[in-house]
Amino acid sequence: MTWNATVLTLYPEMFPGPLGVSLAGRALEAGTWSLKTELIRDHALDKHRSVDDTPAGGGPGMVMRADVLARAIDAVAPEGDPRPKFLMSPRGRPLTQGLVRDLAGGPGAVLVCGRFEGVDERVIAARGLTELSVGDYVLSGGEVAAMVVLDAVVRLLPGVMGAEASGTEESFETGLLEYPHYTRPAEWEGRTIPEVLSSGHHGRVEAWRREEAERLTRERRPDLWARHKDRTDD
Amino acid sequence: MTWNATVLTLYPEMFPGPLGVSLAGRALEAGTWSLKTELIRDHALDKHRSVDDTPAGGGPGMVMRADVLARAIDAVAPEGDPRPKFLMSPRGRPLTQGLVRDLAGGPGAVLVCGRFEGVDERVIAARGLTELSVGDYVLSGGEVAAMVVLDAVVRLLPGVMGAEASGTEESFETGLLEYPHYTRPAEWEGRTIPEVLSSGHHGRVEAWRREEAERLTRERRPDLWARHKDRTDD
Repeated sequence: MTWNATVLTLYPEMFPGPLGVSLAGRALEAGTWSLKTELIRDHALDKHRSVDDTPAGGGPGMVMRADVLARAIDAVAPEGDPRPKFLMSPRGRPLTQGLVRDLAGGPGAVLVCGRFEGVDERVIAARGLTELSVGDYVLSGGEVAAMVVLDAVVRLLPGVMGAEASGTEESFETGLLEYPHYTRPAEWEGRTIPEVLSSGHHGRVEAWRREEAERLTRERRPDLWARHKDRTDD
Repeated sequence: MTWNATVLTLYPEMFPGPLGVSLAGRALEAGTWSLKTELIRDHALDKHRSVDDTPAGGGPGMVMRADVLARAIDAVAPEGDPRPKFLMSPRGRPLTQGLVRDLAGGPGAVLVCGRFEGVDERVIAARGLTELSVGDYVLSGGEVAAMVVLDAVVRLLPGVMGAEASGTEESFETGLLEYPHYTRPAEWEGRTIPEVLSSGHHGRVEAWRREEAERLTRERRPDLWARHKDRTDD
C-alpha cells in the first residue's frame, strides 16, 4: 500500500528536493510513498494568473485568494478523498511525533503551502484545512515545513528504516529525550567512553541510559519532563 | 556583508534544494548569503571511508564517530571562526523566532547534520556544538532541519523580503499568533469578509486584528498566551 502525498505550492520545482535522496528518496523509488505536486497558479482564471491580492482592511503584504486555492484543492482532493488536508502555518497545531505516527498509519496527506502574508481565512474553513505548524518560527513559505512533515512520516512507513535506525528508542517515542551515544575509538582527544558502556552488563547499561535520558529531559526540557511525569504517574 | 552558512552533511547534493528557489534562492544569487557544504565522509581516514560505528554498550543503529566529525568541523570552522556551531538534534534547544533573529544579526552559522542513531557525545562537547531542535518530532537526518533554520534566517537578512512580506506583524514577533487574513472577492461561496475590514476606519481595523490575534493565541496555544501575558504584565 502506497502512502500518498499531494503538495499544493507555487514552487513545485522545490520537490522532491531533499526528499528525493537517501532514506525518503529510496522509499519514493520503491513506491512506499508517492509525491504529487500541484501548481496553485494553474487554478487562477485571470489573464495575469494572479493567486494573491491586497489584504482587506489594509496592511503590508499580499493574501492568497480563497477562490483560486479552493479550485486547486478541489482538483487534487475531491470530496471523498480520505486524506487529511493541512495548511502549513505558524498559527497551526504544533507537529508532534504522535501526530507523525498517526499520519504514517493513514492513507496519506494533502499539504497546502502558503506564501505571502497569509491565506484567505474563508478557504481554511470551507475546505476543512487543519493548520499545522512545525515550530515557533516563521518560514518564507510552507514548502520546507511540508518537507519536514513528509520526512518525519516517511521514515516510519513499513520497511523504510530497516537497520538504519531503530524508531523505538528515540527521542519523544518514550516521552524523553534520547540518552548520549558513544562509539569507537574508546579514547579520543583524552576523552573516554563512560565505563558502564563497556561493562557488558545489559541491565546496568539500560539503567544508565534511562537515567541519562531522564536527566537530559529534566535539564533541557522541563515542559516535556512535566508531561512525562503526568503520564507515568497515572 | 554576506551571511555565511556552512552545512556538514553526508548528503551535500540535498543543498541548496528548496533554498535555491524563490526568496532564499534570489538572495543566494545576490550574495546576501552564501552556502557551502562539506561532505563529512571526506574526513574518514580508513579505506572504507566509514563515518559511523556500532554504539558502545550495544543497541540498534549506528553512531557517527567523534574523530571523523571533528576533522570535518575543524576543516570548515578552524579556531577563531566567529560563527556559532550547531548540531541539528531533537534533543536540542528548541528553535524560536527570537533565536532566528539573533542568528540573522550575526556572521552566519555552521550546521552539522547527523544521520544514523546519533553522534558521539564527545565531539559535541569538544567542539562546542549547540544542539538545536526545530520541533518535537524525529527526522531521518538533520538536513531538512538545517533548511528550516536557513530559510527562517535568510528571510530576515537586510533587503531579502522587500514588499513580499512585512516581517513585523507576523506570528511570534509580537508573542501572538497572527490575525486572520482576507482578500477579494468580497463574497465567495456565500462567505463574506468581516464588516470592520471594509470600514476604512484604521483604528477599528487595528483593534479587531489585535483582538483576533489574542483570541487565536488563547484558544490554540495557551503556552504562548501565558508567556505573552507574563511579558506584557511586567
